[in-house]
Amino acid sequence: MKANIPESKQKRVVIIGGGFGGLKLARKLAKQDFQVVLLDKNNYHQFQPLFYQVATAGLEPSAISFPFRKVFQQLDNVFIRLVEVTAVNKEESLVESSIGDISYDFLVVAIGADTNFFGNANIAANSLPMKSIAEALAIRNKILQNYEDALSISDAQEQQAYMNIVVVGGGPTGVEVAGTLAEMKKHILPKDFPELQFDKMQIHLLEASPKLLANLSEKSSEKSKKYLDALGVKVTLNARVKDYDGEHISMEDGSSINTKTLIWAAGVIANTLKGIPSEALVRGNRIKVDRFNKVEGCNNIFALGDVAFMTEEAYANGHPQVAQVAMQQGENLAQNLVRIAQGKELKPFTYKDLGSMATVGRNLAVVDLPFMKTQGFFAWLIWMFVHLMSIVGTKNRLLIFINWAWNYITYDQSLRLIIRTSKKEKLN
Amino acid sequence: MKANIPESKQKRVVIIGGGFGGLKLARKLAKQDFQVVLLDKNNYHQFQPLFYQVATAGLEPSAISFPFRKVFQQLDNVFIRLVEVTAVNKEESLVESSIGDISYDFLVVAIGADTNFFGNANIAANSLPMKSIAEALAIRNKILQNYEDALSISDAQEQQAYMNIVVVGGGPTGVEVAGTLAEMKKHILPKDFPELQFDKMQIHLLEASPKLLANLSEKSSEKSKKYLDALGVKVTLNARVKDYDGEHISMEDGSSINTKTLIWAAGVIANTLKGIPSEALVRGNRIKVDRFNKVEGCNNIFALGDVAFMTEEAYANGHPQVAQVAMQQGENLAQNLVRIAQGKELKPFTYKDLGSMATVGRNLAVVDLPFMKTQGFFAWLIWMFVHLMSIVGTKNRLLIFINWAWNYITYDQSLRLIIRTSKKEKLN
Repeated sequence: MKANIPESKQKRVVIIGGGFGGLKLARKLAKQDFQVVLLDKNNYHQFQPLFYQVATAGLEPSAISFPFRKVFQQLDNVFIRLVEVTAVNKEESLVESSIGDISYDFLVVAIGADTNFFGNANIAANSLPMKSIAEALAIRNKILQNYEDALSISDAQEQQAYMNIVVVGGGPTGVEVAGTLAEMKKHILPKDFPELQFDKMQIHLLEASPKLLANLSEKSSEKSKKYLDALGVKVTLNARVKDYDGEHISMEDGSSINTKTLIWAAGVIANTLKGIPSEALVRGNRIKVDRFNKVEGCNNIFALGDVAFMTEEAYANGHPQVAQVAMQQGENLAQNLVRIAQGKELKPFTYKDLGSMATVGRNLAVVDLPFMKTQGFFAWLIWMFVHLMSIVGTKNRLLIFINWAWNYITYDQSLRLIIRTSKKEKLN
Repeated sequence: MKANIPESKQKRVVIIGGGFGGLKLARKLAKQDFQVVLLDKNNYHQFQPLFYQVATAGLEPSAISFPFRKVFQQLDNVFIRLVEVTAVNKEESLVESSIGDISYDFLVVAIGADTNFFGNANIAANSLPMKSIAEALAIRNKILQNYEDALSISDAQEQQAYMNIVVVGGGPTGVEVAGTLAEMKKHILPKDFPELQFDKMQIHLLEASPKLLANLSEKSSEKSKKYLDALGVKVTLNARVKDYDGEHISMEDGSSINTKTLIWAAGVIANTLKGIPSEALVRGNRIKVDRFNKVEGCNNIFALGDVAFMTEEAYANGHPQVAQVAMQQGENLAQNLVRIAQGKELKPFTYKDLGSMATVGRNLAVVDLPFMKTQGFFAWLIWMFVHLMSIVGTKNRLLIFINWAWNYITYDQSLRLIIRTSKKEKLN
């Protein structure tokens, strides 16, 4: 079956995935002489760097999501389809999807990465990942429900399992969620649940390597640990989780932690797509591309962002799987597709590292920029400014700013609602 | 099993349900010498009058919800439990619940009402009710998903079934949702879905009686119909739905309408609770109470709000099932419980009708107040003011105001996100 997308005289670029890379590419190409077909499972772009604030009841999903249709409202060469992509048929230049086959002149695979449980089925089944808005909401609901449930538990040790929260993975996500939880423990939870004893509640951050924020400078890494220590987070480095049954974490060193809540932010693995030549797949399921983002062994298929594996001089092991790489590749690929159409020479991609940052708790952050490294309150102001400016949509920006200001002044994240979608809801 | 709630010297009032009536009562009693136990399925109070704006992507659930724990944060005589109540054991003065048995000195049943499908199982299975935030979100998701799906349909008639929306029930909810959908059809949907032909989209409002807004004045009723007509809503009075299979509505007069979306706002039926003496149940499952809200045949059990059936001179058939009755009864019952404790004479309840109102579309409303009836733009300003002032929480008020102002200026409800909670989410 052929999907219902109008034929056009323009060359058709099909983009699978509207994350940072796919969306940037689509926006750039929309202004060019191409027919752009954007395929995604969701009808909105998600701003992943703030998922942790959705999980900790500080922001609503809508504040960090933006409907694709609104981005491309005025354009008649952009076609958005909400689909499940099942495979690529390279020979016939077709994408197979839940709405039928979609032909392409150029295909761009921007399907990103998902949580890596490193093959442990128990951890996958019992822990809480945070790679989508739905998952972030599930974490929020789970934590709130656990405290409600804890009220009915009289056994002290069992009650503590409901109260403890363990975060695995000392990257920015893990650091940020652990810090925010520590602030909740301090300012909010004891007020909401005066019947529970929060001095017993433990927040653990477990990192398998010898340092937090491995991609940041030594100073930022150390400071982030210092800030978390001060907030009462139990940071353990060189800590390797062996197994988790939903109540007890077994560590490789034989120790264990009781918790009903394990937030898993320990690593990512690229999403896969049937039909991509297996010889192009490298470590972590990433797709090997050349400096023009062209998939190895393919003619008109490109990959970018977290799912792509490109090496350049300074990045012999590939680029970090972060938003900046995806956006810069999206921008470069848009230019190259125009150059292909014009028969011009292509420009190889070179990653320009604009820096990394992470916030810890209420008003501290660590920020490594090319021209400056700073930690503390001023870093936190930079962190806020950069994130506010990166969000799509003026209204989102305004609402996030108001939420942040409100939460900051009142010491309160007020979205402590356990909202589940109705049982009646179904995807047809 | 006994639920884990601390014993107290204070008399314990158990309130089942934190709607308008239950919450008002709990807030009043919290200041008195009682132990208050508030039981609810949700951890938040829902502001039902604005559900329709959640359903039509104008407001977020969080804007019209307020966590119970935040309301009662500073009080040590209030105990909130998130439970499913299964029965009342009148003989032993116990509430049976998912967390065990809860004893009471006084029990207040404030469990409200749910959608009435009048016994039609097909309609119950295939239509969309709007009596909870989850249901309102399900409507939003369904409508948005339908337009996405319509893009893949080539058969014109089938496509129309995806685009048409039928609202059944000409009360305030039905009028408000139909009006808002008409504005979306005019200002938003054609921009989001330029591939679809919205002149073909029909919005029906079906009302079984001969007039809309039966509780309002003749003038308001007529004007609301006029406003809806002008917006392009096909209002049909004396229209009785016979059946609905998820695609076709069969009407009693033999006609039919094709639609995948039937929003059912046609009536309510009180929720039931095992253990309430069956002789106390009257029409619509309501519980018969005396003028002090005491359940017939019970000593220390009260009922209030939508679930209660009380007659007074001017209301021989019971009070309307609206927020005002519930709140006034909550207030009066709080005073009477204090009077009981003090051995004083009780004060019978008298309903003071403060009026009704409904908004139609962008900037019109009909408002019947005791001292004034007005329709049009000024009525709409009154409607906004009253609703803003009724919302619990300053931040909610602020966010709703900003959303309304934004949507009004931009002609855009921007929350067109299909967000589902993760499959991983479960209750424990």
